[in-house]
Amino acid sequence: MSDNAKRIPVMELFGPTVQGEGMVIGRKTMFVRTAGCDYRCSWCDSAFTWDGSGKDDIRMLTAEEIMKELLALGGETFDHVTISGGNPALLPGLGELIEALQERGIRSALETQGSRWQDWFWDIDDLTLSPKPPSSGMATDWEVLDDIVGKLQSKSSSFCMKTVVFDELDLEYAAFVHLRYPSVPFYVQAGNANLQETEPARMLPYLVERYEWLIEKVMHSTELRSVHVLPQLHTWVWGNKKGV
Amino acid sequence: MSDNAKRIPVMELFGPTVQGEGMVIGRKTMFVRTAGCDYRCSWCDSAFTWDGSGKDDIRMLTAEEIMKELLALGGETFDHVTISGGNPALLPGLGELIEALQERGIRSALETQGSRWQDWFWDIDDLTLSPKPPSSGMATDWEVLDDIVGKLQSKSSSFCMKTVVFDELDLEYAAFVHLRYPSVPFYVQAGNANLQETEPARMLPYLVERYEWLIEKVMHSTELRSVHVLPQLHTWVWGNKKGV
Repeated sequence: MSDNAKRIPVMELFGPTVQGEGMVIGRKTMFVRTAGCDYRCSWCDSAFTWDGSGKDDIRMLTAEEIMKELLALGGETFDHVTISGGNPALLPGLGELIEALQERGIRSALETQGSRWQDWFWDIDDLTLSPKPPSSGMATDWEVLDDIVGKLQSKSSSFCMKTVVFDELDLEYAAFVHLRYPSVPFYVQAGNANLQETEPARMLPYLVERYEWLIEKVMHSTELRSVHVLPQLHTWVWGNKKGV
Repeated sequence: MSDNAKRIPVMELFGPTVQGEGMVIGRKTMFVRTAGCDYRCSWCDSAFTWDGSGKDDIRMLTAEEIMKELLALGGETFDHVTISGGNPALLPGLGELIEALQERGIRSALETQGSRWQDWFWDIDDLTLSPKPPSSGMATDWEVLDDIVGKLQSKSSSFCMKTVVFDELDLEYAAFVHLRYPSVPFYVQAGNANLQETEPARMLPYLVERYEWLIEKVMHSTELRSVHVLPQLHTWVWGNKKGV
């Protein structure tokens, strides 16, 4: 790989904070947010990573530089790093960062929609595949997703799947995902369509209502039995604020 | 065991709902709440299981009767049952219920303070030991807790520890627990001292504030590194309401 290909487009780097979603909800962690995505989800809460609005914040960093900044920020307070995007699975160079974390005994988590494979998926401690439901406007490539799940299962990696749900159609999609991969731990997450609200106190009633709606739906389902139903916990605390 | 000893004092039986705490937060589950406790925590949110106020609701049921009621309530919608108390570890007869669940492919979760051992601990899928901090008014018997942790680790059972935190002293206690059992996944949970409030909307700002306080404290700690920080999610949705 050329030196340039090894550099990682970093959009944000912050923490320690708590993971607000999915299989590691509540985990004390640092965040590295990479730029660039192959999707354009209608309700993306990190559109600044791909719509051009954040392009001046992108820095091309090596794994070593990222590690240095993480340590400068978090010191001795952390042992877990979450890599998010955008879609970090577009970046082959992340393998080096994940190796560097492992060498220091730091666990890693990563979320991706499952549209691309990278060999370093096997080395992620907490990997989440999050195929996007109809409300996103994106279409899932099931062959690619089947292939990724198969590869992960062939080495008995620990990973989970997660689907954000905004409406009834999304719920049907979630059930389809769960029935297609029944042995993979599955999380459904209440979607946040209120991305413009900046005041957490005003968002809370809306977010609680959406979470209750989703709970009610899933509780009556005979298809969604072996599931976790979660909110985006960080939005309940910090609303749509970035960098927390 | 006599027929009477095999009966389980059941206080509540409800679901499906979502688990609001700890390692299985968000999990779709049925709840069985048993009566009786060897502790008297000052802030117990289920004091009706031991203070006499709920004694008319206690029913002495066999494992088979509990299973029948769970199936009548939940039908085909669930594959997970949470046993809570009181302290269910006082009840040797629970082993039979856990076996009955396993036979049907139903996973089980159980929480106990870690003051008593039962051999059926090894058969629980998601076991939580929750030693109580100073604010509870209870004293931890570390020899007993060491023994329980040792027994679980000897069979590489999957379990975690959780401590509720109300104040700075509790936080020190939590760090002590984490450093004493460093390899056990550890959860700290924001305490709810507002047990009389019946209106969820009025509780929310208080609960969010307590959760933020705890996050802030833990984020700066170099002792509490490998931890999850969580609220009691069900109180954010349903307040202090019982049976949800």
